[in-house]
Amino acid sequence: MNFDYSEKVKAYQQKLYDFMEEYIYPNEIVYEEQLNAQESRWAGVPPIMEELKTKAKEEGLWNLFLPDDTYGAGLTNSEYAPLCEIMGRSLLAPEVFNCNAPDTGNMEVLTRYGTDEQKDRWLQPLLKGEIRSCFSMTEPDVASSDATNVEARIERDGDEYVINGRKWWSSGAGDPRCEIAIFMGKTDPEAARHEQQSMILVPLDTAGVSIKRMLPVFGYDHAPHGHGEIDFENVRVPASNILLGEGKGFAIAQGRLGPGRIHHCMRLIGAAERALEELCKRVQSRVAFHKPLAEQGVVREWIADSRIELEQARLLTLKAAYMMDTVGNKAAKSEIAMIKVVAPSMALRVIDRAIQAHGAAGVSDDFTLAAQWANSRTLRLADGPDEVHRRQIAKLELSKYKEE
Amino acid sequence: MNFDYSEKVKAYQQKLYDFMEEYIYPNEIVYEEQLNAQESRWAGVPPIMEELKTKAKEEGLWNLFLPDDTYGAGLTNSEYAPLCEIMGRSLLAPEVFNCNAPDTGNMEVLTRYGTDEQKDRWLQPLLKGEIRSCFSMTEPDVASSDATNVEARIERDGDEYVINGRKWWSSGAGDPRCEIAIFMGKTDPEAARHEQQSMILVPLDTAGVSIKRMLPVFGYDHAPHGHGEIDFENVRVPASNILLGEGKGFAIAQGRLGPGRIHHCMRLIGAAERALEELCKRVQSRVAFHKPLAEQGVVREWIADSRIELEQARLLTLKAAYMMDTVGNKAAKSEIAMIKVVAPSMALRVIDRAIQAHGAAGVSDDFTLAAQWANSRTLRLADGPDEVHRRQIAKLELSKYKEE
Amino acid sequence: MNFDYSEKVKAYQQKLYDFMEEYIYPNEIVYEEQLNAQESRWAGVPPIMEELKTKAKEEGLWNLFLPDDTYGAGLTNSEYAPLCEIMGRSLLAPEVFNCNAPDTGNMEVLTRYGTDEQKDRWLQPLLKGEIRSCFSMTEPDVASSDATNVEARIERDGDEYVINGRKWWSSGAGDPRCEIAIFMGKTDPEAARHEQQSMILVPLDTAGVSIKRMLPVFGYDHAPHGHGEIDFENVRVPASNILLGEGKGFAIAQGRLGPGRIHHCMRLIGAAERALEELCKRVQSRVAFHKPLAEQGVVREWIADSRIELEQARLLTLKAAYMMDTVGNKAAKSEIAMIKVVAPSMALRVIDRAIQAHGAAGVSDDFTLAAQWANSRTLRLADGPDEVHRRQIAKLELSKYKEE
Amino acid sequence: MNFDYSEKVKAYQQKLYDFMEEYIYPNEIVYEEQLNAQESRWAGVPPIMEELKTKAKEEGLWNLFLPDDTYGAGLTNSEYAPLCEIMGRSLLAPEVFNCNAPDTGNMEVLTRYGTDEQKDRWLQPLLKGEIRSCFSMTEPDVASSDATNVEARIERDGDEYVINGRKWWSSGAGDPRCEIAIFMGKTDPEAARHEQQSMILVPLDTAGVSIKRMLPVFGYDHAPHGHGEIDFENVRVPASNILLGEGKGFAIAQGRLGPGRIHHCMRLIGAAERALEELCKRVQSRVAFHKPLAEQGVVREWIADSRIELEQARLLTLKAAYMMDTVGNKAAKSEIAMIKVVAPSMALRVIDRAIQAHGAAGVSDDFTLAAQWANSRTLRLADGPDEVHRRQIAKLELSKYKEE
Repeated sequence: MNFDYSEKVKAYQQKLYDFMEEYIYPNEIVYEEQLNAQESRWAGVPPIMEELKTKAKEEGLWNLFLPDDTYGAGLTNSEYAPLCEIMGRSLLAPEVFNCNAPDTGNMEVLTRYGTDEQKDRWLQPLLKGEIRSCFSMTEPDVASSDATNVEARIERDGDEYVINGRKWWSSGAGDPRCEIAIFMGKTDPEAARHEQQSMILVPLDTAGVSIKRMLPVFGYDHAPHGHGEIDFENVRVPASNILLGEGKGFAIAQGRLGPGRIHHCMRLIGAAERALEELCKRVQSRVAFHKPLAEQGVVREWIADSRIELEQARLLTLKAAYMMDTVGNKAAKSEIAMIKVVAPSMALRVIDRAIQAHGAAGVSDDFTLAAQWANSRTLRLADGPDEVHRRQIAKLELSKYKEE
Repeated sequence: MNFDYSEKVKAYQQKLYDFMEEYIYPNEIVYEEQLNAQESRWAGVPPIMEELKTKAKEEGLWNLFLPDDTYGAGLTNSEYAPLCEIMGRSLLAPEVFNCNAPDTGNMEVLTRYGTDEQKDRWLQPLLKGEIRSCFSMTEPDVASSDATNVEARIERDGDEYVINGRKWWSSGAGDPRCEIAIFMGKTDPEAARHEQQSMILVPLDTAGVSIKRMLPVFGYDHAPHGHGEIDFENVRVPASNILLGEGKGFAIAQGRLGPGRIHHCMRLIGAAERALEELCKRVQSRVAFHKPLAEQGVVREWIADSRIELEQARLLTLKAAYMMDTVGNKAAKSEIAMIKVVAPSMALRVIDRAIQAHGAAGVSDDFTLAAQWANSRTLRLADGPDEVHRRQIAKLELSKYKEE
Repeated sequence: MNFDYSEKVKAYQQKLYDFMEEYIYPNEIVYEEQLNAQESRWAGVPPIMEELKTKAKEEGLWNLFLPDDTYGAGLTNSEYAPLCEIMGRSLLAPEVFNCNAPDTGNMEVLTRYGTDEQKDRWLQPLLKGEIRSCFSMTEPDVASSDATNVEARIERDGDEYVINGRKWWSSGAGDPRCEIAIFMGKTDPEAARHEQQSMILVPLDTAGVSIKRMLPVFGYDHAPHGHGEIDFENVRVPASNILLGEGKGFAIAQGRLGPGRIHHCMRLIGAAERALEELCKRVQSRVAFHKPLAEQGVVREWIADSRIELEQARLLTLKAAYMMDTVGNKAAKSEIAMIKVVAPSMALRVIDRAIQAHGAAGVSDDFTLAAQWANSRTLRLADGPDEVHRRQIAKLELSKYKEE
Repeated sequence: MNFDYSEKVKAYQQKLYDFMEEYIYPNEIVYEEQLNAQESRWAGVPPIMEELKTKAKEEGLWNLFLPDDTYGAGLTNSEYAPLCEIMGRSLLAPEVFNCNAPDTGNMEVLTRYGTDEQKDRWLQPLLKGEIRSCFSMTEPDVASSDATNVEARIERDGDEYVINGRKWWSSGAGDPRCEIAIFMGKTDPEAARHEQQSMILVPLDTAGVSIKRMLPVFGYDHAPHGHGEIDFENVRVPASNILLGEGKGFAIAQGRLGPGRIHHCMRLIGAAERALEELCKRVQSRVAFHKPLAEQGVVREWIADSRIELEQARLLTLKAAYMMDTVGNKAAKSEIAMIKVVAPSMALRVIDRAIQAHGAAGVSDDFTLAAQWANSRTLRLADGPDEVHRRQIAKLELSKYKEE
C-alpha cells in the first residue's frame, strides 16, 4: 500500500498546474469572446486554440493520454490519472493538450486496431492535432443503453461497404476540422448477439453523410465542437475502412470504453476540485447576516462533504487505473463501472453546492460552474447510464455467492 | 378537512387543460422556431405569443393570479393554486395567460400600493399585457440572500429622486416591450435595519439606465425575456414614482414575495407533473435488455418516488395557500418558507429522473425537461436561497419552546 | 379545500393532549420500572397499565379507532387521524386507549366479518380491553412480502379445521392476556392465486399451539407484549372459527391492512412530532463551542427539514384518510401505499436527527428516541416492505398511460 | 501508487479469515447462549471467551493493534487496517484477539505515556488479556462533543489526587474483569483552554467509585461488557497515578483518539462487508413474485451501491492509515476526520439495506445485522459526533484559501 505519486508524475503535475494558471484559466473567456465574435458560433475554431496547442506541444504536454509509447506519451493509467484530472479543471483544456473526447478514444482505437494505412491516413493527423474526429454509435430511435439495440447497417457490396443509419450525439461533428467518424453498425444481424456489430471509418465528406442538426446540452451548444445528429444514407466507403474485421464492433467498443470512461472520471474529479476551490474562495468573500458565508455551519458542511466525496472518488478512480495497469481492463470491469457511477454524481453534488454558494452568479457564465454541471450531467448517461453500470456491479457481486 | 376542489376550480382546470393541449404544447416549438428565425433571438417577441394571448383573453383565462376582483380574476390563493400548476407545465404558458413572473408580482405591488396615477400609467397596460416590467433588487456585488445588503441608493433631490446602483437578474428586461422597473434601494442607510430601503418606479427609457448584458441560465438565454444586468447612473425620476413612501421597501418586498414564492411553487408542481407524465410514456415505449424500461424495478422506484414527492409538495403548497387565504401571509410565513424549500428540490429530482429515463434526449431540447430543470434550479436561489428559508423555519420552530 | 379540523376533533385533541401530559408521559418510566421489578419481564403486565386504561375509559378516550359506531367511537379516518397521531407520541399510549396494533386490526376484522358468536366470544372482551390478541400471518421460511407465499395449511376435517404451520412476528403473543390468534393459511393451494388463503380464529390454549420464542427488535424485547414465533402442529378448532368463509383470507387481509397501515402512519407522525419537540428543547439547553447547539446552522437545518418532512407526511396521511372515507379503501390504494412508504422513513429521519442532537443519551433509554426509532424501522417491513408499496404505486401510475 | 497488500499482510489475512470461519462465527451464538444461561447476563463472562482467546494467542493473532513491537505486534496502521477489518465482521471477535475498544486505546496510552510502574501494574495484565479497562471521559450533564466542557475535577491533595465527577458511557465497566479506569478531569480550570485537563488511573475498587447503572444501546445491554454510568465521589488515588503530568489530558486524548477512530472505521468496514455478503446470499435464496429477490432491479441497486460505498470507505481508511504511518497523526488530521464521518454512515446504509433484504428477520437476533447497526449508530456519536469532524474538515479546507 503506497498512496504517493512518483517523481515523474509530480513533475508533470507541476508543469500542468503552471500551464493551467498561465495559459488556460485566463484564456477561457478569450476563447468564448473569439467564438462570439465570429459570424456564427459554428463558423470556426477560435484562433486562441491553436496558439495554446502550440504552447502545450512545446511544453511536452501533448498526447499524455496515450499509453502507447510510440504514438503517445507512454504513461500508465495510474500515471495519467492525476494529470488528466488537472486538465479536467477547465472545459477548454483537454483539447489544448490533445486529450479530449472523443478524439482520445478514437486515437486509441486506431493505435490498437488500425492498419498501417488507417494509421497513416487518420491516426497521424489526429495525433498532431491537425484534424478532429467523431464517434457515431448512439441512435435516436432506440435505447442505446443496450448496445445490442443498434439498428444502423454496414453492408458489404463488392469492394465497398454501404452504410445506412441515423446517429446522434456524435460529439465533435460540428468542428470544421472534423474529418472522420468511427461508425458502429450491424454487418450481420443474424450473428451471435455480440458479433453482429462492426466499426468502420467514414470520412465526413463522403456522399450520403449529412449533419442534420447540432444538439444542445442544457442550453449549451458546445460550439464549435457540438453534438451532431447525422444521417448516413447509402454511404459507400472502401472495404479497407473496416476496423479489425466484421463482427468486432462490440469488442472494440468494450476496449474503447474502459479508458474512455476512466478519462471522463479523472476530468470530473478535476472539475469538482475547481468547484470546491471556487466555493471556498467565494464564501470567504461574501457577507450575509453579519458574517462571512464561510462561517455558516451549513456552508461548512457542504465543504466537508465535498472534500470527503472528492477524496473517495479520486481514490477509487486511482484504484481502477491501477487495476487496469496491473490486471487489465477486463479484471477491472467492476471498478471501472463503479467510478463511472461515482464520479459524475460526485461532481454534480460538489458543483451544485458551489453554485448554491455563488447565488445567482453560479447559474450564469461568470463562473464555469453551470457549464461544468451540464457537462457532468451528461456523463450519467454517456458511455452507459448509471443504471447499466450498477447492474453490472451487482451481477459481479452476486456471482461471488452463486454456488451457495 | 376536505381535499376536494370546488366546482368553480374544476371548471377552470378543464378549460386550462384543454387550452394547453390545443394551443400551448403544439406551439412551444413554433415559438422557438419564430425566435430563431429572427435576425437575433433578442430582436423581438415571436408573433405566436400575441396570438395566444388573444385566445387566452377570449377564453377568460387572463390575470387569474390577481386576487383583487376589480383588477384581476378575484381568485383566492387556494383557487389559483391548481390553475397556476397547469400553467407551469409549459415555460411558454404563464405569459400567455398574463401570469408570468415578475410581472405578476409587479402588478400585485401596484394594485396594493400604487397611487391612482401609478395605476393608470403602469398597472393598466400591464394588466392588458401591452407592456412588460422587471424587478431590480438583486445586486452583483453583495450577497443578496440578506436583503439588508442592498447598496443601491435612492436619494431625494427636490422633486426628484436620484438613483444609483448596479442591479442584475432583472428578469424580463430583455423584452422589447419591457418599459418599467421596480427598483429597490436605500433612501436612508442610517434608519432602522428594515426601514432603510424604498421601492421606486423607474421607466427603462430614463437617462442613465443602461442594460449592460443579458445573463444566461445554464446556457439558456431565455430570450427575448432574459435576465438583465442594469446600470443605474444618476437616474432621475419624479418623486411621485416612489411606492408607498420612503422606508417601505422592505415591507413591500415581504408582501410581494409571499404570493410570488407560492406562484413559483405551483408552477414547479406542474412542471414536475409533466416530467413524470413524459417519464411514464417514454419508459413504456423503449426496450432495453429484452423488456420495456417500464419493467425495470429501478425505473418503477423513480416513478413511485416521484409520485410520492409530488403529492406531498402539492398538499403543502395547497395548505400554504389556504393559510394565506384564511390567516394571512404573515401567519403563513413558515408554510411559505417550507414550500419554497420543497417545491424546487422536488421538481429537480422528478425532472432529473425523467431526464435519465430519456437518455441523451433528456438533456437536449427535444423535450422541455432540460429547460425546466434549469429553470427549477434557479428557484433554489431566487426569492431567497433554500438556506435562508430553512433558517426562518427553524427559528419559528425553536421559538415554540423558547420559554422552557 | 379546507385544512381545518372540526370542532369535535379539536375537542378530542385537547382531551388527548391533556391525558398524555397528565397520565402517559409521567408513567412511561413507571411502566418500565414495574416491568423490571417483576421476576421476569414476561411475568405479567405492569399494574399501571390497567389503572391507565380505567382512566382512559372514564375520559371517553376508548376504542376511538373503530369507525363502527355500535362497537366503537364511530369516527371517520379523517377524524381519527389527528387523534391517533397524539397516541403515537408514546409507545405506552395506544394500549391505554385500546387502540394498539394488532388488536385494532383484529377487532376491525371481527366487527366487519365476524359471526355473532365470534363477536360475543372474542370481539366483546377485546373491545373491553379484557383480553389481547395476535395476528399470525408472517412465516419464517418464505418471503412474506409476497402474500401468496404463505405455506401454512388449514384443512377441513369433519366439523373441525386442522391447522399446521410455523408463524413468527405474531406480535402481542407474549402478553399473558393474549387469548386468541387470527391465523392465515391455505385451505386450497389449487385455487386461484388470491383464493387459496383463509383466516381462522385459533385460541392460544388449543392443543398443538406452542410459542417457541419471543423475537427481539434491535435488542428490545417489547415485553410483555412481544413478538412470538409460534408452532401450530395439528391444531384442531371448530369449523365455525373460520372467518367469512374459505378462500376469503386474502380479501380480509386487504381489508384489514388498509386501516392498519394508516394507523401506523398516524402514530409515526406523532412519534416524529415528539422527537422534534425533544430535539428543539435539547439543543436550547446544551452548549458547545461557546453557544447553544440551537445556534448551530446544521442543527437548524435538521429542525427545518424535520418540520418540512413532518408537515408533508401528515398532509398525505390526512388525504389518504379523507379518500378512504369518501371514495373507499380501494380507490385510496395508491395513497395508502404512499403514506406507508413515506411515514416510516420520515419518522426514522426525524428521530435519527433527534438522537444525534442528544448525543449518546439519544441511543439509551433515558429518552424514548431509540425505542421509537427501532419501532419505526420495523414499519418499513411490517404490513408490506417499502419496495412492494412502491411497485404498487408505480403500477398505478404507469397504467394511466397504458393505452398510448 | 500501489494498491496491493504486502505478503505479510496477506498471510495474516488468511489466518484471520480461517480463524473467523472456524472459531468465531460458530461461537457467536454459543457466547450468547452461555450469557443467557447465567443467573444474570451481568454475572460473568461466558467461558467460551477465554477458550477463544487462548486459541487466538496460540495462532499468533494477539495484540495486532499495537504498533509498538516490544509490547505488541509491531504492525503499521496500513498493515493492521485490513486485519482489523476482518475482526470487525463479528462483534465477538475483537476481544478474542485482544483488540477491542476501549482496551486498545488504554493500552496504547499506557505504552506511550505510562511510567514503568504503571506499565507493570496495568499494561502487562491488559496485554495478556487478564484484566479489562474502561475510559471515563464523557459526562451526562454537558455536551461532550466539545471536550473542553468536562466538569469533573482532579485535585492535588498532598501525595494524592482527589477525584470528583459523574461519568457515563464508560464502556467495558460492566465486565467483572474490569479493574481500571482512565479518568479525565480538570486539574486547573484556570489554565489555558487545552491545558486544564488531566488523565489519571483510577482502580475501580477504590473507595468512592460507584457504578450507578449500565446504559443500553437501542435495547442492547452489551452485557457483560456494558456502558457504565459511574459516580466518582472524593475518590483518592496516589499522585503517581497521573498520566504524563497535569494538564496533559487534552494532548493524550488527541493522541489516543486518532488510532481509536481509525480502528472503529476498519471494523465498520468489516461489519459492512459481512452485511453485504449476507444480503447477497439471502436474496439468492428467497423468492417473491415468481423470482428470486436477487433478480429485482432495486435489490441489485442496493448491492451495487453498497459495493461502491464500501470500496470508497476502505480506500479512504487505508489512505488515512498510510498517512498516519508516513506523515503522522497530526498531518493526517483531516483524513482521520473524514473516515470518522464516512465509515459509520456507510456501514449504517449497507447494513440497513441488508436488514431490508432480510425482512423481519433482519431486525431480530437471528442475524447480527441489527446488533451491528446499533453499534455502528453509536459511532456517529462516539469519539466525536459527525458534526464536529465536519467542522474540522471544513476548517482545514478553508484555511487553504485564507490569504486570498
